[in-house]
Amino acid sequence: MNQIDLNSDLGEGFGVYKLGDDEAMLDIVSSANIACGFHAGDPDVMHKTVVAAMKRGVDIGAHPGFNDIWGFGRRTIVGDSMRTIENLIAYQIGALQAIARAAGANVSHFKVHGALGNLMFTDREISDAVVRAVKAVDRELLFVVPPNTEGESAAERGGLNLVREVFADRAYTDEGHLVSRRLPGAVIHDAELAAQRVIDMIDHKCVTSISGKKVAVKLDTVTVHGDTEGAVTMAKIVRSRLVENGIVVQPVSRTFAR
Amino acid sequence: MNQIDLNSDLGEGFGVYKLGDDEAMLDIVSSANIACGFHAGDPDVMHKTVVAAMKRGVDIGAHPGFNDIWGFGRRTIVGDSMRTIENLIAYQIGALQAIARAAGANVSHFKVHGALGNLMFTDREISDAVVRAVKAVDRELLFVVPPNTEGESAAERGGLNLVREVFADRAYTDEGHLVSRRLPGAVIHDAELAAQRVIDMIDHKCVTSISGKKVAVKLDTVTVHGDTEGAVTMAKIVRSRLVENGIVVQPVSRTFAR
Amino acid sequence: MNQIDLNSDLGEGFGVYKLGDDEAMLDIVSSANIACGFHAGDPDVMHKTVVAAMKRGVDIGAHPGFNDIWGFGRRTIVGDSMRTIENLIAYQIGALQAIARAAGANVSHFKVHGALGNLMFTDREISDAVVRAVKAVDRELLFVVPPNTEGESAAERGGLNLVREVFADRAYTDEGHLVSRRLPGAVIHDAELAAQRVIDMIDHKCVTSISGKKVAVKLDTVTVHGDTEGAVTMAKIVRSRLVENGIVVQPVSRTFAR
Amino acid sequence: MNQIDLNSDLGEGFGVYKLGDDEAMLDIVSSANIACGFHAGDPDVMHKTVVAAMKRGVDIGAHPGFNDIWGFGRRTIVGDSMRTIENLIAYQIGALQAIARAAGANVSHFKVHGALGNLMFTDREISDAVVRAVKAVDRELLFVVPPNTEGESAAERGGLNLVREVFADRAYTDEGHLVSRRLPGAVIHDAELAAQRVIDMIDHKCVTSISGKKVAVKLDTVTVHGDTEGAVTMAKIVRSRLVENGIVVQPVSRTFAR
Repeated sequence: MNQIDLNSDLGEGFGVYKLGDDEAMLDIVSSANIACGFHAGDPDVMHKTVVAAMKRGVDIGAHPGFNDIWGFGRRTIVGDSMRTIENLIAYQIGALQAIARAAGANVSHFKVHGALGNLMFTDREISDAVVRAVKAVDRELLFVVPPNTEGESAAERGGLNLVREVFADRAYTDEGHLVSRRLPGAVIHDAELAAQRVIDMIDHKCVTSISGKKVAVKLDTVTVHGDTEGAVTMAKIVRSRLVENGIVVQPVSRTFAR
Repeated sequence: MNQIDLNSDLGEGFGVYKLGDDEAMLDIVSSANIACGFHAGDPDVMHKTVVAAMKRGVDIGAHPGFNDIWGFGRRTIVGDSMRTIENLIAYQIGALQAIARAAGANVSHFKVHGALGNLMFTDREISDAVVRAVKAVDRELLFVVPPNTEGESAAERGGLNLVREVFADRAYTDEGHLVSRRLPGAVIHDAELAAQRVIDMIDHKCVTSISGKKVAVKLDTVTVHGDTEGAVTMAKIVRSRLVENGIVVQPVSRTFAR
Repeated sequence: MNQIDLNSDLGEGFGVYKLGDDEAMLDIVSSANIACGFHAGDPDVMHKTVVAAMKRGVDIGAHPGFNDIWGFGRRTIVGDSMRTIENLIAYQIGALQAIARAAGANVSHFKVHGALGNLMFTDREISDAVVRAVKAVDRELLFVVPPNTEGESAAERGGLNLVREVFADRAYTDEGHLVSRRLPGAVIHDAELAAQRVIDMIDHKCVTSISGKKVAVKLDTVTVHGDTEGAVTMAKIVRSRLVENGIVVQPVSRTFAR
Repeated sequence: MNQIDLNSDLGEGFGVYKLGDDEAMLDIVSSANIACGFHAGDPDVMHKTVVAAMKRGVDIGAHPGFNDIWGFGRRTIVGDSMRTIENLIAYQIGALQAIARAAGANVSHFKVHGALGNLMFTDREISDAVVRAVKAVDRELLFVVPPNTEGESAAERGGLNLVREVFADRAYTDEGHLVSRRLPGAVIHDAELAAQRVIDMIDHKCVTSISGKKVAVKLDTVTVHGDTEGAVTMAKIVRSRLVENGIVVQPVSRTFAR
């Protein structure tokens, strides 16, 4: 029986500000990556999102980023030491763990946000720092990271529980990397096409690259976006098509042999 | 054998900014209340302070405050719901717990900072919210609070491990409350006098009030300041006099029957 | 010929976050009070809002608040000196003035936001501090403030150009004060009723209080909200009814004898 | 008669936090570059520094940086559009102008801080954006920038009033660029040597590079640091030696033909 996790970045409001439709997305996904107050989120938003996820049996993950509410963690901040990277990761995981514990919930996984996450595609030193922080805080956390990246390698070196992440709405290169958003064709806007690609990835463990090649790909979770125009609709269609094709949508933690 | 805990608020720098002489104070006190990034402190300062405390066998405590770096948590922020108070307390405790865990240390106690702490003198609703948050995150945390306050009552109601706190350099009223800083005589600047008052409190369980009465006082820990002019000198003298009088200075956690 | 200014608080987004529909509101109002980065707004949102207002001939006003993005300036922050109040007001006015100047626009008026504005209903000391700051930065700024408040008195004492503000959707007491939002009937949700009340205020210089009395009221501008459910609809109806009744909607600056 | 301006970055405290000895430095320099609240400084610190400078006849300059109190503006933030750069520069200049105006003072010059300043060594696009912002806000501001940089070229292209800045305590390359701080010999710790180099630069319009060559250098102002160990001592010695050599220390604005 085929199964897959659907994850989305949620809890990205701040104070009076809302972003995306968290309630609707939580009815669709099986894992929520919750912002931890540095690039988005605040203690109230975190609490509310944790409670809403818990009610639906959706897995709760820490989704830390650079300390940059203004830039939503999408700006690369250059100049932090590796010690600082470790500390800001640890701080944010712990903050969410306490919010979750206070609500009777548990943090199951970890995924880095935005510009810091992008650095883990190619930067070994930063990837190792992030892995060290996760290990030091809670080595049981499932470490969500795209395959074929320095982040994946660092997690393997660190012996973390690796969860490989593909994107429902993104094109891939022949090397199995994401096509840069700046290039044409990088983002797939057709929900049915995105759904079919995901089904193929699950069934055949490969994806058709932007040049038309079949490229092998490992995946444990599929990321759907929650904050863009039409996000909820695409996520719904992806989920529906998965279920119609006999694929069970459930959190990775259900099947992970700890 | 008499014993007492000496505690101080430390780790109150931020980024390039320093406040007080943490290293010197950590050689004197037995418990450090470490700022958690909302009114002071940042992940790096927290990590550094945790490591420096751990090296010396000094107990590590969470010292959360209002989200107000500009005002150093000394400004009262009116308008948060009790749910928000609970969330911001949980968030900050968790952040320090993770920083500590990553360094191989443990958070033993909890003490609220500044304006939020002052509200716990008289505000029952806020005191109960703080107590709920601490219980929900880690009910084993020693809850440091001045005696004869709503905070103390809330901790008793909540069944928390109560640690009663007196101040080495502050005058008390006939009711056992702190004399407001705005009144003359509120702060004791003579270190020898401060030290003698502490010894009397430990030996006789009472303090001479500002009007000259003997007032009963319960205490488990004595607060010495770390960030004022002459702070280190006063703290050193208080500690020396305690030791010379046969009083053992050690963390409350050593003797607390859990 | 009757005329009135319609004003609204705009430019209250922050980074990726949006609040309200600024473009729609700018087609309705004659004056925009633009957040200055302390409780909402950032340099980009300020610039964008200034340009959008300028294109439509809508007056640009500085709308400063407490330094509190998390609380959207709605939380009262207690403990600032009057010097600090003056400085934070001056800072925010200047920031908007420069953004406006760089865009070829001019800041015509000033209105305090949220909790700081509420303090000016009853707090003479704070009202005087705000007035001092405005005078010191630009004494020609039109000073928007509700009548029958300490803020109004302070502006009169300070010799500022006073613009009296009433609210389209709020009930008034027999004393001409706003009915507290916590009381039933404080907010008027029926747009036609709100519009009729505004027309009566303009035509007869009085308003029917919540107890049914006719209360005299002076007004130069009418505030419509931009960030609540149905805000644009109510603002549109108010404007339409004003125009249908022969009332010209235009900025106060057009008629103010400087 | 030879004359020179001595400038220093001041007003870099924040809230309770102090940095450097502003009062001592203001007795030495002729121009103060005052932080504008984004990387350091707050409305109170800005006001206090403006007043202290004004009392001594020291010129007041805007010293804006990235929005990064935690990193003191020393971290490069990548991802802002040129429009954003312009807006954050305009915002900060305006904020200081209003604080100055409220105190009866005037902002005479402009100098970018830290990582944003470093980008202006080599980045033409960012340099042009900064120049556009300064021109749009106040084209009379003296634009302080190191010679032989993209920032200098941008200011020339923009027709700004150029003030060329050299550093008292830094080594130069054969091309007249600063030697990177990461290289040995980059920083000159001997105050007498630093003073002599400055005198030579003023008298002979050239500097001995790190490789021993005489390199031509234009200069209108000499930067002395205010926040490092021994900063005040070095600044005092530099000033004394200048005066002893008949060089008049005075603000550039005194001699600039507007």
